[in-house]
Amino acid sequence: MTTTSPAGFRASGITAGLKASGSPDVALVVNDGPHKVGAAVFTTNRVVGAPVMWSRQVVSDGVVEAVLLNSGGANVCTGPEGFADTHHSAERAADALGVSAADVVVCSTGLIGERLPMDKLLPGIGAAAEALATDGGTDAARAIMTTDTVPKTTHVVRDGWSVGGMAKGAGMLAPAMATMLSVLTTDAVVDPALARRVLHTATSVTFDRVDSDGCMSTSDTVVLMASGASGIQPSEAELTEALTGAAADLSRQLVSDAEGASHDIAVHVTGATSTDAALAVARAVTRSNLVKAAVFGNDPNWGRILAQVGTVPVEVAPFEADQVDVSVNGVMICRSGAAHEDRTLVDLAADREVRILIDLHAGEASATVWTNDLTHDYVHENSAYST
Amino acid sequence: MTTTSPAGFRASGITAGLKASGSPDVALVVNDGPHKVGAAVFTTNRVVGAPVMWSRQVVSDGVVEAVLLNSGGANVCTGPEGFADTHHSAERAADALGVSAADVVVCSTGLIGERLPMDKLLPGIGAAAEALATDGGTDAARAIMTTDTVPKTTHVVRDGWSVGGMAKGAGMLAPAMATMLSVLTTDAVVDPALARRVLHTATSVTFDRVDSDGCMSTSDTVVLMASGASGIQPSEAELTEALTGAAADLSRQLVSDAEGASHDIAVHVTGATSTDAALAVARAVTRSNLVKAAVFGNDPNWGRILAQVGTVPVEVAPFEADQVDVSVNGVMICRSGAAHEDRTLVDLAADREVRILIDLHAGEASATVWTNDLTHDYVHENSAYST
Repeated sequence: MTTTSPAGFRASGITAGLKASGSPDVALVVNDGPHKVGAAVFTTNRVVGAPVMWSRQVVSDGVVEAVLLNSGGANVCTGPEGFADTHHSAERAADALGVSAADVVVCSTGLIGERLPMDKLLPGIGAAAEALATDGGTDAARAIMTTDTVPKTTHVVRDGWSVGGMAKGAGMLAPAMATMLSVLTTDAVVDPALARRVLHTATSVTFDRVDSDGCMSTSDTVVLMASGASGIQPSEAELTEALTGAAADLSRQLVSDAEGASHDIAVHVTGATSTDAALAVARAVTRSNLVKAAVFGNDPNWGRILAQVGTVPVEVAPFEADQVDVSVNGVMICRSGAAHEDRTLVDLAADREVRILIDLHAGEASATVWTNDLTHDYVHENSAYST
Repeated sequence: MTTTSPAGFRASGITAGLKASGSPDVALVVNDGPHKVGAAVFTTNRVVGAPVMWSRQVVSDGVVEAVLLNSGGANVCTGPEGFADTHHSAERAADALGVSAADVVVCSTGLIGERLPMDKLLPGIGAAAEALATDGGTDAARAIMTTDTVPKTTHVVRDGWSVGGMAKGAGMLAPAMATMLSVLTTDAVVDPALARRVLHTATSVTFDRVDSDGCMSTSDTVVLMASGASGIQPSEAELTEALTGAAADLSRQLVSDAEGASHDIAVHVTGATSTDAALAVARAVTRSNLVKAAVFGNDPNWGRILAQVGTVPVEVAPFEADQVDVSVNGVMICRSGAAHEDRTLVDLAADREVRILIDLHAGEASATVWTNDLTHDYVHENSAYST
């Protein structure tokens, strides 16, 4: 049910002592082949951690032997010394695995602006290499947790091949450490160009549409490794479908584990002139503190939703404000831009999941973006601790 | 010290019964001339209230006789009936004043999506007309308050002429009703084109740079009326300076009265290639829930600030991430994109005002945007009541 479920992968998760809590904090996921195909997508933030800078180079040739991950420190804004730390970490892993450091992706998550304790991390990498096992995926998933309450793993099985994966982070739980990391694995036969293409397609409709609080991390990384161990070469459509399913499952788990949140909110925009237009409107709503606070208060406040819809420039999303319908949990409380069904018919308290449907009546395109509500716990988790 | 401080204006504020609290809720500000010059700027939201639709027409010819304002209801998303309500309100005021309804600006603030109680509002307009007085500016300022704790007024005096003003709303206090309304008056001799120009200049560097929570209202309106009663015709530069001073004073009062907030945050970006670049970076920071929650926790979290700076696309704001300095309350805790002075030297608990200085080291331009911190009171005020 995780990164080691597809054939050709080993993984491990151990405690190196990076975290004061003593929880596991170093993970390895290794591709034993026969193919060593890899691809990755990274944060688009211009401020990125040393691991992102390093790993962009690693994946550029389409070859990835292993992914080394640590929690307990993000290694961001740490200057040339921080980059050297990442380099040394990759070399330590490469030595233990008998591969080239240039084929080892590195991911770090935790506090920004502080060096990693290399005296603990380097021995930990050796221990992680020794602990590698074909059933080590769950240990790896545990070792990358920060404020996650549960490890997040997935496995999408097809005929003779599969896609596995793990992820950590995000939601609104403690976005200071919201580095969203995910490792996806498959035993399908995939060439590097295809791996890159399907990973971009899969992440663009899954991880890219979870918008916890509009704050873009400096370390977000999603890595795909393909071992080819199944000997089966699915079509691009089949591979895209399975990979998207795995990424969607992990994305939904990220939203559901948003500790600071009491509701998961799906904003579905339909009737848009294009997918980009639908996305722009959905993101305008998911980023509204007023909408999110209203949902926390179980208030189906369509006025706040419509006000956010109206902030999207007409050149981005053409529509007429007086044609927009808004339904919350199936009740159309706003029709043609004005009050319609009684808002007291909407029960937001019953379920954690809230469905906001916005019909722009301008075209045929649609898109969904997930977010969480804005709660006292969110403010508490992001103000009470210096993270 | 308010809209009636310049010569040629009368104002009033009375209780029509729109608010359950029984507080004053209808205000009038009348220009007795000799000139009846007017200009206004409105929200750029595509979803706007009937008063904004109405008032855009009123100001288009540069003539404004009076501004009618009410709290207790925003008259937004109320369809053709809501527009008719605004029209009838303007006619009632025009009748009482002996002017044309087409010269009466209307501003409403309060809940979205509900009709105004016209049986109370129309008699209230008559009462407001009867109560008009040359010292009525303070009553008017009180009658437009919603969750404001104090009325907000200003008076900038020059040699023989002056600019007065009042404002309500915003900050983060209860942005559901965050319609930011302001009426500015001057007894200077100003032609309509100049009035429009200086008002745009003044608001673009004042009201437009208070970014409470990134949520754009459907009703924001700033009106300028010029009576010419002083007989003095200042230069455009003099007028711009005085009007900007008045608008800046009112803007600062809006930030300071943000009840849900415990800190006012000035984000000053310098070393930018253009004012637009500086503004884009400043707004990226002022809209970050993570930065705002950190300030609430008295945590000078430069990592969160830098991560927001990095979200601005390079085509919008050219700079190198590893050259950016960040100072908080005068302590440079981040230099060249990495940790510098000890963050414990920053004391955020001492003052309500927090100064964040970001030097991009890319050019000569700068800009400042004000916001507030993200607090439990903000979440409470925007979730506990159905507004």
